[in-house]
Amino acid sequence: MTNRWISGTHNRNEISSFYGVGAEQQHESTFAIEADHPAVLVGGDAAPTPAELLLAALASCLTSGLGNIAAVRKINLESVESRVEGDIDLRGILGLSDEVRNGFSQIRVSFRVRGDASPEALRQLVQQAVARSAVYDVLTHGVPISVDVAAA
Amino acid sequence: MTNRWISGTHNRNEISSFYGVGAEQQHESTFAIEADHPAVLVGGDAAPTPAELLLAALASCLTSGLGNIAAVRKINLESVESRVEGDIDLRGILGLSDEVRNGFSQIRVSFRVRGDASPEALRQLVQQAVARSAVYDVLTHGVPISVDVAAA
Repeated sequence: MTNRWISGTHNRNEISSFYGVGAEQQHESTFAIEADHPAVLVGGDAAPTPAELLLAALASCLTSGLGNIAAVRKINLESVESRVEGDIDLRGILGLSDEVRNGFSQIRVSFRVRGDASPEALRQLVQQAVARSAVYDVLTHGVPISVDVAAA
Repeated sequence: MTNRWISGTHNRNEISSFYGVGAEQQHESTFAIEADHPAVLVGGDAAPTPAELLLAALASCLTSGLGNIAAVRKINLESVESRVEGDIDLRGILGLSDEVRNGFSQIRVSFRVRGDASPEALRQLVQQAVARSAVYDVLTHGVPISVDVAAA
């Protein structure tokens, strides 16, 4: 995927291809996702913050997985709702303290699941979604990131 | 933020408030971000995958930060583009192998920055954006996540 700066803290991601099953694959259409900072982080609040995109990625990954697992287990879902909260001390990003980290210190996810199975079977859908989630894995265990720059 | 299942692997995040400066704050408007799986992951490809949202969060966080840092350093940016790639072995998510992780094994970010400063000064914008990024911090170091479920 690619990102293009618009102005200030506002930028736009374009997602058109992904890697899967040994080769680059194309989405049926190109998806655009913008991000911006709120005023408290010197932005225009034109879009969600990048940190909120991260929380959305987590909620979506668990919910998409849950949808697949329910289908395999022949459980008909009625509703799946979740709320995600992340604790962050903005003094890290703002460079005001070296004692707090830049990112979230803790993330909490709360699911409410309804469907035609026992509460225990519905809870197990969430447990299995967590056990197989790509985003949960990366967020809890970390991943090496390389960054290179061409400047002119 | 909240997430609501739509059908299958398709779901929708709503982002209306965020935590900052010691209190819950409201965005000026509510932002919606959908996610879905592609056909290879038993979805309808109606939206980006959750793992792509994660990569978008990273690109946006670095680019928003870069925008702020350039302003502080009085560098006028002409363009900032980045490309983010993540290596993932889908056998993890699909439960076909216990030897590969669910998430990305490596993420690569490539920036191309143009502006009215030396190439070295432009490269340093990216370095400082990395040093202050909330999303880069969380992805490289990990974060504790709790998940609870109410089922009925």
